[in-house]
Amino acid sequence: MPERTEISTLGEFGLIDHLTKNIEIKNASTILGIGDDAAILDHFGKQVVVTTDMLVEGIHFDLMYTPMKHLGYKSVIVNLSDVYAMNATPQQITLSIAISNRFSLEALDEFYEGVYTACERYNVDLVGGNTCSSQKGFIISVTAIGEVDADKFVKRSTAKQGDLICVSGDLGAAFLGLTILEREKKIFLETKGVQPDLENQDYILSRFLKPEARKDIIEFFAEDKIIPTSMIDISDGLSSELLHICKQSKVGCTVYEDKIPVNDFARQFAYKLELDPTACALSGGEDYELLFTIHQNDYNKIAVNDNISIIGHITEEVEGGILITRGGNSHKLTAQGWNAFP
Amino acid sequence: MPERTEISTLGEFGLIDHLTKNIEIKNASTILGIGDDAAILDHFGKQVVVTTDMLVEGIHFDLMYTPMKHLGYKSVIVNLSDVYAMNATPQQITLSIAISNRFSLEALDEFYEGVYTACERYNVDLVGGNTCSSQKGFIISVTAIGEVDADKFVKRSTAKQGDLICVSGDLGAAFLGLTILEREKKIFLETKGVQPDLENQDYILSRFLKPEARKDIIEFFAEDKIIPTSMIDISDGLSSELLHICKQSKVGCTVYEDKIPVNDFARQFAYKLELDPTACALSGGEDYELLFTIHQNDYNKIAVNDNISIIGHITEEVEGGILITRGGNSHKLTAQGWNAFP
Repeated sequence: MPERTEISTLGEFGLIDHLTKNIEIKNASTILGIGDDAAILDHFGKQVVVTTDMLVEGIHFDLMYTPMKHLGYKSVIVNLSDVYAMNATPQQITLSIAISNRFSLEALDEFYEGVYTACERYNVDLVGGNTCSSQKGFIISVTAIGEVDADKFVKRSTAKQGDLICVSGDLGAAFLGLTILEREKKIFLETKGVQPDLENQDYILSRFLKPEARKDIIEFFAEDKIIPTSMIDISDGLSSELLHICKQSKVGCTVYEDKIPVNDFARQFAYKLELDPTACALSGGEDYELLFTIHQNDYNKIAVNDNISIIGHITEEVEGGILITRGGNSHKLTAQGWNAFP
Repeated sequence: MPERTEISTLGEFGLIDHLTKNIEIKNASTILGIGDDAAILDHFGKQVVVTTDMLVEGIHFDLMYTPMKHLGYKSVIVNLSDVYAMNATPQQITLSIAISNRFSLEALDEFYEGVYTACERYNVDLVGGNTCSSQKGFIISVTAIGEVDADKFVKRSTAKQGDLICVSGDLGAAFLGLTILEREKKIFLETKGVQPDLENQDYILSRFLKPEARKDIIEFFAEDKIIPTSMIDISDGLSSELLHICKQSKVGCTVYEDKIPVNDFARQFAYKLELDPTACALSGGEDYELLFTIHQNDYNKIAVNDNISIIGHITEEVEGGILITRGGNSHKLTAQGWNAFP
């Protein structure tokens, strides 16, 4: 049996001390971190980016197949992704959690190990937050703070007709990872004792359980002096996010099925599950890739980057959102992203 | 029957649109508010203060006696109080909530009415957040962001021997308000149909249900060029907060029972409930007053403010935290504040 320490034995302040004792401040913009009423930041003339998200057990994650460490990592990543989607660099996070007494200190330590690993990799400081009891389940709230040179931030509402539509990485694999985990959970519950068959599925599982945020793309933009005309991160699926850009920019879009990046293994896996890989990419969600538009003049700069696919272009608002299939048919794009209120 | 609209009928984005449609940006520091991946702020060279808190139904609040509007208001106030406790001015908040389907849109509207009333009164902008489902109960996470002139922030860890200990307003009434609400709830549950007897208890009830943050004290400091040597807000009770200052500043303190400000009505009410008013002030919590220390040279500046009481002084660390009672006896201060993990 692994060791189990009840959280209540530490008390509120003892727990905070325990969880934050090894924090080292990494950014010059962090003037004062954890330990006071609030943190103090100084971004020295840069603009400040703020985004927040809440993750609820049973709604956003299932601890039956989500390791605590991965959950901690992902909780940070999903927020950093929103900062990158503004063309900004994350610097700090705050983290609040509510937990029921079903969780041990050891489980919480694993969660924080994931949080700190993400902070380390993305060079952000944990500067505040709190921990408290919940009546049921585990609830996580992260706020991410970043900085951006004045007026270099990129909104969703500024795409223009003729702009090229680009996406980083590949899409749909996270959804397939979730699908396989849900399937194995069902088999496990129905046939007690049967261990899950997760072999050779590393890529799609890691895309779901341990996504990364596209720091590299923002750095590429800075190095090559590219400023996208609009940008959003893909949390709900390509369709939903594209339609956000179209609605807020008052434009239409045309995307080509054969240009939508899908990983080869994920494609094979989709076929095995009798799923359409394109549908997974359009509506699957949780990929945390960046969807952005660029002016046509920037085509040459973008084309050299293997991590970016050009999948279509922005049209007039009246044309709406259109998908051109491999067969040359034209379909209306519809948002079938994840619904927060099922 | 009041109208009941199911939240699920609006969908995630419809709900966000509904809840945020009347927002007007009040602060020049808010460059971009709700509606993108993140908000953009520009504090124009000032330092940024960030604090966050999570409130969980059944742990931090009881909807049996907490009106939704008051809950919305208080959720904002408790975070603004932390910003003021850094000697800073709040500018923005983000708000995330998770709600079960037991709540109607009308209930949520009331909650947001309280949130917007607090934002209006304290001149802060709601710039982000999200709403999602919970499996059980109502969970609220607020992050407050403020600004402060470079290096004018006030920490907990900088009190010095000989400094005077001051507190704003009066203490203990919020705890008495909670006590009476819990008592009436018990009577109501045991004797169905008996309506609560809450007459003549406006002051203590409002101190608990609708606390205010001490904006006026921070403004007084700015006008009279006072910078406290240390400061904290009183959420867990005077003892607990004083001991935080002592521990982090490596000092001791002596406070005098007869100097601790208790409202007359609250005092009478405490006697009626057979409670010690001083114990309520020391350990009750939820007052959201400011506890701070000043250099003795600032005595004359502070003494003229009727909203501030000088309750003692800072001593050497070795002397610990001491309370001198009305009878002249000396007691060790102990932290009996609210425990987040009961």
